[in-house]
Amino acid sequence: MANLYAERIAALRAIMARNGWDAVIVTATDPHSSEYPALRWKQVEWLSGFSGEYGDIVVTMDHAGLWTDTRYFIAANKVLPGTGIELHKLRVPEQVTIPEWLPTVFPAGAVIAVDGLCQSADAIAKLSSFEIVDVPDMLSQLWEDRPEIPQSPIETLGVEFAGESRLERFAWLRGFLQEKGCDAMLITDLAEIAWMLNVRGGDIAYNPLVMSYLLVSKDNVEWYVKKDSLKELDDETLDSFEELEKDGVKISGYSDLAVGLMAAQNTCEKIYVDPATLNYTVSKKLADIFGDDNIVMAVSPIRLRKGIKNATEIAGFREAYIEDGVAMTKFVYWLEKAVSGGGHVTEWDASVKLTSLRAEIPGYKGDSFENISAYGQGAALPHYVTPQDDTAPELKPWGFYLIDSGGQYLFGTTDTTRTVPLGPCTDLERLDYTLVLRGMIDFTMSVFPYGTAGCRLDSLARMPMWRAQRDFGHGTGHGTGFFLGVHEGPQDLRQNLYEQAILPGMVTTIEPGLYREGMHGVRHENTNLCVDLGENEFRHWCGFEELTCCHIDTAPILKHLMTFEEIEWLNKFNEKVYRTLAPKLPAEIAAWLREKTLPL
Amino acid sequence: MANLYAERIAALRAIMARNGWDAVIVTATDPHSSEYPALRWKQVEWLSGFSGEYGDIVVTMDHAGLWTDTRYFIAANKVLPGTGIELHKLRVPEQVTIPEWLPTVFPAGAVIAVDGLCQSADAIAKLSSFEIVDVPDMLSQLWEDRPEIPQSPIETLGVEFAGESRLERFAWLRGFLQEKGCDAMLITDLAEIAWMLNVRGGDIAYNPLVMSYLLVSKDNVEWYVKKDSLKELDDETLDSFEELEKDGVKISGYSDLAVGLMAAQNTCEKIYVDPATLNYTVSKKLADIFGDDNIVMAVSPIRLRKGIKNATEIAGFREAYIEDGVAMTKFVYWLEKAVSGGGHVTEWDASVKLTSLRAEIPGYKGDSFENISAYGQGAALPHYVTPQDDTAPELKPWGFYLIDSGGQYLFGTTDTTRTVPLGPCTDLERLDYTLVLRGMIDFTMSVFPYGTAGCRLDSLARMPMWRAQRDFGHGTGHGTGFFLGVHEGPQDLRQNLYEQAILPGMVTTIEPGLYREGMHGVRHENTNLCVDLGENEFRHWCGFEELTCCHIDTAPILKHLMTFEEIEWLNKFNEKVYRTLAPKLPAEIAAWLREKTLPL
Repeated sequence: MANLYAERIAALRAIMARNGWDAVIVTATDPHSSEYPALRWKQVEWLSGFSGEYGDIVVTMDHAGLWTDTRYFIAANKVLPGTGIELHKLRVPEQVTIPEWLPTVFPAGAVIAVDGLCQSADAIAKLSSFEIVDVPDMLSQLWEDRPEIPQSPIETLGVEFAGESRLERFAWLRGFLQEKGCDAMLITDLAEIAWMLNVRGGDIAYNPLVMSYLLVSKDNVEWYVKKDSLKELDDETLDSFEELEKDGVKISGYSDLAVGLMAAQNTCEKIYVDPATLNYTVSKKLADIFGDDNIVMAVSPIRLRKGIKNATEIAGFREAYIEDGVAMTKFVYWLEKAVSGGGHVTEWDASVKLTSLRAEIPGYKGDSFENISAYGQGAALPHYVTPQDDTAPELKPWGFYLIDSGGQYLFGTTDTTRTVPLGPCTDLERLDYTLVLRGMIDFTMSVFPYGTAGCRLDSLARMPMWRAQRDFGHGTGHGTGFFLGVHEGPQDLRQNLYEQAILPGMVTTIEPGLYREGMHGVRHENTNLCVDLGENEFRHWCGFEELTCCHIDTAPILKHLMTFEEIEWLNKFNEKVYRTLAPKLPAEIAAWLREKTLPL
Repeated sequence: MANLYAERIAALRAIMARNGWDAVIVTATDPHSSEYPALRWKQVEWLSGFSGEYGDIVVTMDHAGLWTDTRYFIAANKVLPGTGIELHKLRVPEQVTIPEWLPTVFPAGAVIAVDGLCQSADAIAKLSSFEIVDVPDMLSQLWEDRPEIPQSPIETLGVEFAGESRLERFAWLRGFLQEKGCDAMLITDLAEIAWMLNVRGGDIAYNPLVMSYLLVSKDNVEWYVKKDSLKELDDETLDSFEELEKDGVKISGYSDLAVGLMAAQNTCEKIYVDPATLNYTVSKKLADIFGDDNIVMAVSPIRLRKGIKNATEIAGFREAYIEDGVAMTKFVYWLEKAVSGGGHVTEWDASVKLTSLRAEIPGYKGDSFENISAYGQGAALPHYVTPQDDTAPELKPWGFYLIDSGGQYLFGTTDTTRTVPLGPCTDLERLDYTLVLRGMIDFTMSVFPYGTAGCRLDSLARMPMWRAQRDFGHGTGHGTGFFLGVHEGPQDLRQNLYEQAILPGMVTTIEPGLYREGMHGVRHENTNLCVDLGENEFRHWCGFEELTCCHIDTAPILKHLMTFEEIEWLNKFNEKVYRTLAPKLPAEIAAWLREKTLPL
């Protein structure tokens, strides 16, 4: 029997032949360049079986290739055999990207078909020597049971949570647009739309977002959100729409964007749009309607403003991390007792238990990403996916269990990683545990001048392990949203040089790790609020306040490798965790936590 | 009596009126964008009295302005009153640069006269709305006793010092040019010319360079070096020319460049040139002769290759720092005895003494920059200039004396700063001394993946003082040449984001400091060689070897603030200094150094 994916590619080639297309590009991106797309846009997975988070496919009449990076070579090599799809490696020295590869196969003027909704305008610009045919929803004609565009219930977020009304945000944005000489902005990033409108939904797993476009002009606000597929809206959504309409927001259909832009063009000359999340199809529409000279393509100002949390959001974050810490503490307590008591606990059992504990928290709206619940060698994969059944590995009373998880709450989003010793550990485990912890602490203790970019601080979290000639292959940290995506810009902490400063009000994870294939993995992740420390004769200073409120186990630490300052930080941190959480815990667990948080 | 500089500006305005120029720009740059120009190009100083290292003047019929940055505001405000020249501040938030200011004063098409030899082509490109008149050597018609283009004796450097012959370097460069599809390269950077030819001169104070241009084509090498002003050449120069001619280098006149380029154009189509050190006059000549499409403007490959020292150069550097350390040790010993013995020693006396000790070293060719010899509050100015007479402040037997100095040797260039306690120190002095030292040590101990940019490491040298909310306003370090300029690219250590990695073979200073106006200054500067530490399963690793061989005084250190690793590094460093230098020192000084280098 032929391979399912080989059949799908053959069907796609039949369409290509019929239309005279030389090549087709299929991406795994949604129309808003969302980090995680809804099921409808898992097109690469549907066509190839490859489910990695990053991968694009090119199909020609005699070749099919998957372009992905180092993180996913193993996964790709598992699923591709039999599909006829070949792996093209990215982020390797000899990489040949799709825009570099196509001209080696086709002459200028060849016809390349794309689903312009799922391609950025920037990506298409790199193919300028070819004729591009834009076929929105291209795969729908083959993909029979393709999921619809999602429309989950929409709720609004009151000022008591958001700290600022949508009217205040409209006024601010209009002020910005006026300064830039623009009459309107088309907002295409889903988190920016949710933030502007103070709405939340559930169109994408773990991300409380609503698939939509938002047009803010000097006179109007129009939200393109109602999906054609859905005839009846739920009550919560109807209430939300009513509230928004009272604030002057016009509610329209998701597919009515082009019509809305044409109408807007009557009163608006110049329009502002961020190319980072603008798809090719919409960019062409904009150009047709407004003319290239009237489109200001630049970074959305919402990105930075949303990244700097207001006082209400900060208070919410603090509360979220305390409640989350209660759940985490109950979880680690349960885990230790269960595993050391000889119980049968798998990675999946542990994951289910932790989610059930978070679900007890009032205001819990779901997890902020899929729990990474990994024991032993599983933890050596930074992006491990826990098997969701009884094939999940069992936890043993020795070595490390790693849990990277978080919750979505009405009052914040959390992201915490703890490496939990389940019994005796090897010397190498203890050394790695200590070096990673030193990096996390050194970074957290840092003080820096206002305006310092994240990349200038990144090496602080790595130096203790670098001195021992060890390193990890992922970023050191990322911003997190307020009851929004757990990954959020504009700041980050990584090796790439990038000018964005870590500014007061920003919430950023710090999560160094060390990974030993086939052995173990260690990661310690706290989330920190950047705080303003005031000015003196030298500089204006910033530092960090730890938001995370969950103890760090001192048992595996090789104390002689820690500096006095690091030990002092750790003891203070654990003491603060104990004092904050103890009153909220059952007496037995509080007593256990007392033991766990004694000074090193 | 009218102010001398006001008179000179009036004379310049008369020329402007005669020629119909609306404005004149005068820079303090030589035709090769050298960091330090020879006296002939101290045009800004001649016109205004301002002698800061950075400053440009614009004269119009009714305004004269000096544009300079924060470092020189105080100096400018001292000399400008009475000249009619106003200060325009750069590197302040409200800065208006010359290309921004001119259009606020003149309409498009106004006539701006420049000395194109002293302006980069890039700078002129920013004035595209104006008519530019290029008047090479413009000020010569007013400046009666203007110094000639210098021509000091030229010597050649044997392979036993340089590690590579000029013929090997020509072959390497020709290989590079062939890869780039070029037939020739015009080299305009004076250090690159000296390196390519293995020649050294003395045209610029402290910089063993020769004012010249070098044209390397696939068939020929032509050096434009003989100055019209000089009729007779000294014997050393004649010998050098003879040696070069044997290696196929044609020796021509400095002013014959245009003629040479025209001749080269007969056999060379494409020419490579680095815009960073290309002046406007020569860039126009190149365009006239070769045509814009045949000029490849890109970073000179010599910059990086020269920055990565070969084994012979590295051996030379090690020797230079040992010999230099002998001089430094004798100096500090002499200083301590003289000052504590109640002798009258001024900053200038100390400077003269140190230079005399360096001059005893075989192969000494001069100092690598003007000694910064500063006591007490003088040391609070990072770029302090020691008064060269009996107005220089006297050293007292308390507080800090700071000495930043270096030598030019046939086998290397040195740059070292020591902060010397001359007796009792205040608590603040000791704290600052300790924090700066911690930064220097932390940076030196760093290990990092091959390819790590300097800006990613810079914060390591600052974090101990940042945590105490202190900082310094200069770069953390710079590359140094091999018997060439003491400041050399391509690498540096500073706050600006800049991709250049610190690579094995690079020689880089590390010199954090702290400065308290009116009180004291502290700077510790070692020079380090980047070394290859090999590869393991994680990365390819690099680290540092200290080249500097001069003890660090432990007396002012607040030991309880140091980490165990820092103390261990310091004790090992001082012990290595003692063991290396003791056999080369008189017994009395060796015994003194033994005391100075006992473990902290």
